[in-house]
Amino acid sequence: MSEPAPTQQHAVLRYRDGAAHSAQDALAEETPVALVYNGISHAVMMATPADLEAFAIGFSLSEGIVDNAAEIYDISVRTQPQGIELNMTIAGAQFAALKDRRRQMVGRTGCGLCGLESLQALDLNVKPMGHALQLRRSSILAALERLPRQQPLNAQTGALHVAAWANIDGRLPFALEDVGRHNALDKLIGTLAQGQQDTATGWVLMSSRASYELVQKCAQARISLLATVSAPTAMAVRLAQQAGICLVGFVRESGLVVYSFPERVLPD
Amino acid sequence: MSEPAPTQQHAVLRYRDGAAHSAQDALAEETPVALVYNGISHAVMMATPADLEAFAIGFSLSEGIVDNAAEIYDISVRTQPQGIELNMTIAGAQFAALKDRRRQMVGRTGCGLCGLESLQALDLNVKPMGHALQLRRSSILAALERLPRQQPLNAQTGALHVAAWANIDGRLPFALEDVGRHNALDKLIGTLAQGQQDTATGWVLMSSRASYELVQKCAQARISLLATVSAPTAMAVRLAQQAGICLVGFVRESGLVVYSFPERVLPD
Repeated sequence: MSEPAPTQQHAVLRYRDGAAHSAQDALAEETPVALVYNGISHAVMMATPADLEAFAIGFSLSEGIVDNAAEIYDISVRTQPQGIELNMTIAGAQFAALKDRRRQMVGRTGCGLCGLESLQALDLNVKPMGHALQLRRSSILAALERLPRQQPLNAQTGALHVAAWANIDGRLPFALEDVGRHNALDKLIGTLAQGQQDTATGWVLMSSRASYELVQKCAQARISLLATVSAPTAMAVRLAQQAGICLVGFVRESGLVVYSFPERVLPD
Repeated sequence: MSEPAPTQQHAVLRYRDGAAHSAQDALAEETPVALVYNGISHAVMMATPADLEAFAIGFSLSEGIVDNAAEIYDISVRTQPQGIELNMTIAGAQFAALKDRRRQMVGRTGCGLCGLESLQALDLNVKPMGHALQLRRSSILAALERLPRQQPLNAQTGALHVAAWANIDGRLPFALEDVGRHNALDKLIGTLAQGQQDTATGWVLMSSRASYELVQKCAQARISLLATVSAPTAMAVRLAQQAGICLVGFVRESGLVVYSFPERVLPD
């Protein structure tokens, strides 16, 4: 089977200003994607079927399964009847650590926080990072202005988030879209790793709200500034303070709000 | 410890039209919430700490852990240092079935689709329901107009979704907010069950996109019409067709789009 397209056409009935019309609408596909390490299936995520090698690398880094992309020796993408398998071969030491982790988790089956079943198993601590990007307010607004051009799938469907890598001057060399904001960030982190990008030199702009998971992923990838178009949660702000991440929210044409390390967003 | 408040104040730096001001912002709290059945911790979700009994009931129904709210004999909410525990006592037969299900899942530990680790474990089938609500376009738009009044926490923070129960004439007797759209719908489903509401007589309006999980939850709760302010995914549309759910998206003042069973949205 061939990989499903990230969007597809669907016949709809559209009401506009009281009148009904039959029309074709582009819909965002979401596909079950299984992450398989050395032949062992580890997790299934619902994701947009695009940029799946980057997703495999970014997920593995975000989850701490590997410490760097070079520990992933091989990735193959296989389309199955029920979804897509991302088959990775990872280094022996990392695979042994993953097996240990899974052994400790035997019997944990819940939904929610990465399969956690009890509060005792929860670890919401992050380590502070060693660098701290400073940025001008005007660079953030320049990046915002460039963001829509980086969202071709969302322009068709209105259903995808984007995670963009931004330079200090607000240019956006990479941007990755996904129906899930966490997947979009994993795809971006994977793309940065593929390009051996130094994550201390730039920052991330996302179209979404900022949940604690996005801050955790940035902390893991050593990204020291995260800006989002919508609101952060209180826990995202606490984690950002702990990790040394400058968290910026409500990035709009008319302004923005800095939730942690306000001294790192410079007036122009 | 007392239950955390659903919102909290935080000092921020706000840039507006080029000028910086120190300000206080209301942030939405997200709290780890553990669902515990007959003493056994089953799952941990990140949720807004409000309406937690409704959440416990709705989650249990959506996940098929109980078939009706009467099988939950008791719910107690306990605040722990790491989060909140929702301790439920469920009927013996349901608890035995849950233990069986958990035993079959031993060793499954992944993130993502409810702890699923492989594509083979995935079940995306839903049963068609026996009823089919018909609704006038004007009722959907009347409900949309009423929605902001049902979003007090979002009005403070901009970070919450809402799931509202709507009558055939577009009134909204119940609405529940949460940082997670899936939790908001579970809280609504729990509230409907608490009030022994016949779910064939109304429909659901949500502030979010429509993912396949929202359609699955509606199918499980026998809700035959789901309308959302933003876009559906292709899989959400396929599941809605299979379940007999009329799925309406992009509900805006100027119009809306019907993705399945268009004959069930009547021109005024």
